[in-house]
Amino acid sequence: MAEIGIGIVGGGYMGKAHSVAMAAVGAVFETRLRPRLEMICASSPESAERYRRAFGFARATHDWRALVEDPQVAAIIIATPQALHREISEAAFALGKPVMCEKPMGTSVAEAQAMVDAAEASGQANMVAYNYIRTPASQFARKLIADGEIGDITWFRAEHTEDFYADPQAPATWRATGRANGNMGDLAPHILNASLALIGPIRSIMADIETVHADRPGGTVTNDDQAQIMCRFDNGVMGHLYISRTATGRKMGYAYEIFGTKGAIRFDQEDQNALWLYRAEGPEAERGFRKILTGPAHPDYLPFCQGPGHGTGYQDQIIIEAHDFLKAIETGEPVYPTFRDGLAVNHLIEAAWASSETRSWQDVATL
Amino acid sequence: MAEIGIGIVGGGYMGKAHSVAMAAVGAVFETRLRPRLEMICASSPESAERYRRAFGFARATHDWRALVEDPQVAAIIIATPQALHREISEAAFALGKPVMCEKPMGTSVAEAQAMVDAAEASGQANMVAYNYIRTPASQFARKLIADGEIGDITWFRAEHTEDFYADPQAPATWRATGRANGNMGDLAPHILNASLALIGPIRSIMADIETVHADRPGGTVTNDDQAQIMCRFDNGVMGHLYISRTATGRKMGYAYEIFGTKGAIRFDQEDQNALWLYRAEGPEAERGFRKILTGPAHPDYLPFCQGPGHGTGYQDQIIIEAHDFLKAIETGEPVYPTFRDGLAVNHLIEAAWASSETRSWQDVATL
Amino acid sequence: MAEIGIGIVGGGYMGKAHSVAMAAVGAVFETRLRPRLEMICASSPESAERYRRAFGFARATHDWRALVEDPQVAAIIIATPQALHREISEAAFALGKPVMCEKPMGTSVAEAQAMVDAAEASGQANMVAYNYIRTPASQFARKLIADGEIGDITWFRAEHTEDFYADPQAPATWRATGRANGNMGDLAPHILNASLALIGPIRSIMADIETVHADRPGGTVTNDDQAQIMCRFDNGVMGHLYISRTATGRKMGYAYEIFGTKGAIRFDQEDQNALWLYRAEGPEAERGFRKILTGPAHPDYLPFCQGPGHGTGYQDQIIIEAHDFLKAIETGEPVYPTFRDGLAVNHLIEAAWASSETRSWQDVATL
Amino acid sequence: MAEIGIGIVGGGYMGKAHSVAMAAVGAVFETRLRPRLEMICASSPESAERYRRAFGFARATHDWRALVEDPQVAAIIIATPQALHREISEAAFALGKPVMCEKPMGTSVAEAQAMVDAAEASGQANMVAYNYIRTPASQFARKLIADGEIGDITWFRAEHTEDFYADPQAPATWRATGRANGNMGDLAPHILNASLALIGPIRSIMADIETVHADRPGGTVTNDDQAQIMCRFDNGVMGHLYISRTATGRKMGYAYEIFGTKGAIRFDQEDQNALWLYRAEGPEAERGFRKILTGPAHPDYLPFCQGPGHGTGYQDQIIIEAHDFLKAIETGEPVYPTFRDGLAVNHLIEAAWASSETRSWQDVATL
Repeated sequence: MAEIGIGIVGGGYMGKAHSVAMAAVGAVFETRLRPRLEMICASSPESAERYRRAFGFARATHDWRALVEDPQVAAIIIATPQALHREISEAAFALGKPVMCEKPMGTSVAEAQAMVDAAEASGQANMVAYNYIRTPASQFARKLIADGEIGDITWFRAEHTEDFYADPQAPATWRATGRANGNMGDLAPHILNASLALIGPIRSIMADIETVHADRPGGTVTNDDQAQIMCRFDNGVMGHLYISRTATGRKMGYAYEIFGTKGAIRFDQEDQNALWLYRAEGPEAERGFRKILTGPAHPDYLPFCQGPGHGTGYQDQIIIEAHDFLKAIETGEPVYPTFRDGLAVNHLIEAAWASSETRSWQDVATL
Repeated sequence: MAEIGIGIVGGGYMGKAHSVAMAAVGAVFETRLRPRLEMICASSPESAERYRRAFGFARATHDWRALVEDPQVAAIIIATPQALHREISEAAFALGKPVMCEKPMGTSVAEAQAMVDAAEASGQANMVAYNYIRTPASQFARKLIADGEIGDITWFRAEHTEDFYADPQAPATWRATGRANGNMGDLAPHILNASLALIGPIRSIMADIETVHADRPGGTVTNDDQAQIMCRFDNGVMGHLYISRTATGRKMGYAYEIFGTKGAIRFDQEDQNALWLYRAEGPEAERGFRKILTGPAHPDYLPFCQGPGHGTGYQDQIIIEAHDFLKAIETGEPVYPTFRDGLAVNHLIEAAWASSETRSWQDVATL
Repeated sequence: MAEIGIGIVGGGYMGKAHSVAMAAVGAVFETRLRPRLEMICASSPESAERYRRAFGFARATHDWRALVEDPQVAAIIIATPQALHREISEAAFALGKPVMCEKPMGTSVAEAQAMVDAAEASGQANMVAYNYIRTPASQFARKLIADGEIGDITWFRAEHTEDFYADPQAPATWRATGRANGNMGDLAPHILNASLALIGPIRSIMADIETVHADRPGGTVTNDDQAQIMCRFDNGVMGHLYISRTATGRKMGYAYEIFGTKGAIRFDQEDQNALWLYRAEGPEAERGFRKILTGPAHPDYLPFCQGPGHGTGYQDQIIIEAHDFLKAIETGEPVYPTFRDGLAVNHLIEAAWASSETRSWQDVATL
Repeated sequence: MAEIGIGIVGGGYMGKAHSVAMAAVGAVFETRLRPRLEMICASSPESAERYRRAFGFARATHDWRALVEDPQVAAIIIATPQALHREISEAAFALGKPVMCEKPMGTSVAEAQAMVDAAEASGQANMVAYNYIRTPASQFARKLIADGEIGDITWFRAEHTEDFYADPQAPATWRATGRANGNMGDLAPHILNASLALIGPIRSIMADIETVHADRPGGTVTNDDQAQIMCRFDNGVMGHLYISRTATGRKMGYAYEIFGTKGAIRFDQEDQNALWLYRAEGPEAERGFRKILTGPAHPDYLPFCQGPGHGTGYQDQIIIEAHDFLKAIETGEPVYPTFRDGLAVNHLIEAAWASSETRSWQDVATL
């Protein structure tokens, strides 16, 4: 058992989630590598110190370079706005330090590609923080598909839907400007990652992206609210994605439905402890979607509870992610999704914008 | 109270449903106009006689002209294959007899247009038998939207999914050839009708249509298995439709989800006695989709039962349809969907094929 | 194929349901015996004539003896208040005419016993109209249990819950007086019948019966609102029943949950087209309650629709019941539940009252 | 911000859960009092050391007295078998140290009473670890009821159901002997606590307790498998409880259903992030149970995630409990459920056994 000093850049929503995860992961997974909350960085000395005390770090800084270069910091988590992803990760890799970076990587394909290059040149562990694919249910779904349990896939539908901007009277905040803060920049990456993880590479897409409520109290919305994407995967599967921040009533609609020749799968993150499975076998009179409650028989559930049906939550998937990052560091083996895996999402976002703007099918760049 | 002699052309799946409906509708709705099962027509004298006895008609024939021309037959229901829709309805309208025709009208836009012309020239009652839109739940959904209860619509998603051809080993029967028998010809019209009924006219579409399993035991499949359609309604709403006969696990997935600025609606025919409604009002802590069970407070439920939550079924929606047809005959007022309303569905199917073949957005012809 | 003249005594809620059922059952089940709506009886000449016209009977009367004795009336359905059940059925059996009687049989065990005696002396078809046990889902549940598919039963829980008297401000109508109109007299029989049908005879019970809202606008409530019953079946199974007309939010909560050594079953009439089945077999990771949608593979579904998942409704279960009554008449074979089967429910109601009043376990009289 | 040394006696299922909770609670709730994992005790030096390393404690011991008396240990969590609860807590209180004790308190009412006396004599913080009542959903349910949002309660039904002993072939392990390990000793306390927390004191009960499968591979079962309890609360509410470890298909069926004059509530721990609420208000056509997803608007959710619908899990409710224990220590104010609150559960268990054995209603001792 060895300690490892963790530095986290960013103390907001995700900065806190990663901090809690690093505080808990050792006891949960009984890891050999034990994280020590070494340093946290925020935009001002005051906020950094506030986060340090709140989350239990040893030290604080408002200079991310100081954090990256600190000798006690052996692994770095980037939870900043996208604009800083590239610079911080390049600095960390240059010093031979492993990096987990929040999604999506950088602000463009070019930045993401540069980050991949830096990661691979360094040979260090690198992960993009797509945490939703790590729930026991979604891991199990992925395994069922990979094992051929539902046969050849014939249809895939997924969505990432929330409703925080469904009310046209919700004010125009920072969310209303900048592609990175828009629907495609902020929400779409999660479900695009899920699509790739569950079914495989996408070869062509046809997208329609729009701003639903252009005028809000306090200003004009200059980024996008909702989008739909028809696609074809490399294996020929027809697919559809819907992403929206104006989906009234939906709180965490990270959901998918998959039909195969031998069965079908349904999942909705709003009920994250259930996976629905249909098997086209047995007497017709007894067929139906079964609601499987996650339990010790499913991936990464047991460390949280010995009893089935007791459930894991949002914070737990971040703890699973922290565990995977530690594994990547300890073993030197890549853990999905690496920066290279994450780059594919950036390619898809770029292709979606091109498709929507030209109103035509777009091939997705091969990696 | 007056009797009206009903003639039904076709004795199969829908022929039986209409026969039962006409036998029951009088007692259910306590109608003034009372149907009398006068004559049924089928392809041979033997089958016609068999249907006559089975369903309780007075007379049988294998000559649809004899049925249409019979003086005791005052209203005609066409439940034949699509190829006969035009000829039969034209003959009936020429004699001044009202017609209810199974969906979709005819085999092409041209045929459907001819049927509209004949219907309107005759001035007789004319309806297309889109029965799913008549459930108490879907009628109520339509009313909620029309009344503005969920505000301005921002997103519409619908599907018609079944799985009778999901198994690649299901044999190539009559279902495997002919556009009329394919997924777009057979299943799509229902949900296209629902889209028009709930949201309004569609102005442009982008479709992807495919045959999922081209080779089946017994032959090659020459028509289509599944399709998806992105669309924009005249009012700007973004929409998506998915239609499939290979949707493993789905038995009667006539379903839709609608987001508006003030609320949201969800419905699935597999649970046809529930409508899910979300209202973006009241304390945040108490918001959620509510499962409304249909009851006497909803359209056309009370004649079936005085108690809420007791439920109506498939046959009941055909009885509601029969009641509407009788109303149209009795009052002379058009009842939705008229032949003209039905024509819009044919236009959409035609545009979808053109879009899929050219891989481009297609404007839908204005009616 | 032969006609049979049907006479129905009572034109209210259930009188209408039986009338519609008899109008439709021939075409639905393609029966050999075809009902003819011969005569309806109601409390005044005016109401009888109104029902005759509304439901399509040939003749009307306000004298039930005239109906029973009419030579054109060959089978009788009793849909009157409980107080008349005995007299009418005895008169019918004396004339050798088959009877279907609304639940529960008579107002007491003594009356019910007299009805059984009359029925068995006549040798005529006799049925008690417990229609909820006839849905395709509940018939299938019964079959699964009988076939041992869920192993030895270890627990049974059932309820019949509605909320029409949940509001303390709902006025004291006829429902507020008379045991026959109370919760135990009106609602409990349905779910007691279900318990017997699914699990078998009950040997002892412990009940708690109460009036929840004793004072209502318009008067004092002198009968009961809700009850719970612990029981032991003859086979040793532990069970619980809850019956209430003050179950806020419940509209038609005829529901049960059954655990066995090999599986489990859940059903709720509010979602009557689904049966939930759990099988304790296969990999732990894939176990879960499956939602089976009723379809042609289930009892008495196919006559209503060839497609699975299309659903049946309340009126359809009355049609199934009508079909069973016709079968009993035609074949001379008893169809469940006969008057003797119905008597068991009366015994349970009596024992429940005794238990609640003495606050002690009561053995149920052996039949 | 101050540190507090935590000592945990017991390293199994619950020992781990409390360890993780104490490791995470500071960062999650940003507490002023920060737990330090000071010492863990297990039955042997080897197992104690193994837990120390696994969960990250500073020191280990196999002597619980050493732990209790250690000057660095300022607060004690008892996660041992019930037989040790009394002795350990008395020792801790004698030293003026706060105690959180696993449920149920001790092995009898007498022991529980002694523990209450010791706790109250010491004046130290004391809590019984009923964690399920602490989920955001159940806390919110409790608040809705207390605020009168569903009016006067008229019915309460609850269950704690699992299926780990549903298979008659599951071997007779330690679970098969000793009342403490039986269904009433192990599972019932959770849901009895919930009943008291949601509705209030219970005044009389009528129970039926049984061993479902007496013979198992490896031996005879000498304790109980399932039980049902009818009850009356002090406020007159009629209630029912069902507790089972043979409830096939149920994994964590901690569930309740509550009817009131103005609304109704439903909850099931298997879907712990949803609370179902029915309000008897607004148009009849729009009434229905709404599925409320927990979010920042609900108690103790926000520290885990800023977004609604993202969900909390089993481990999170232990973290909430840890937070409450820290609050009790810091503020000196009692936090529910105190030892006195916990004693009521022991009284109920005792009364249930007496009732089942005498087959009669039992009054519950007033505290």
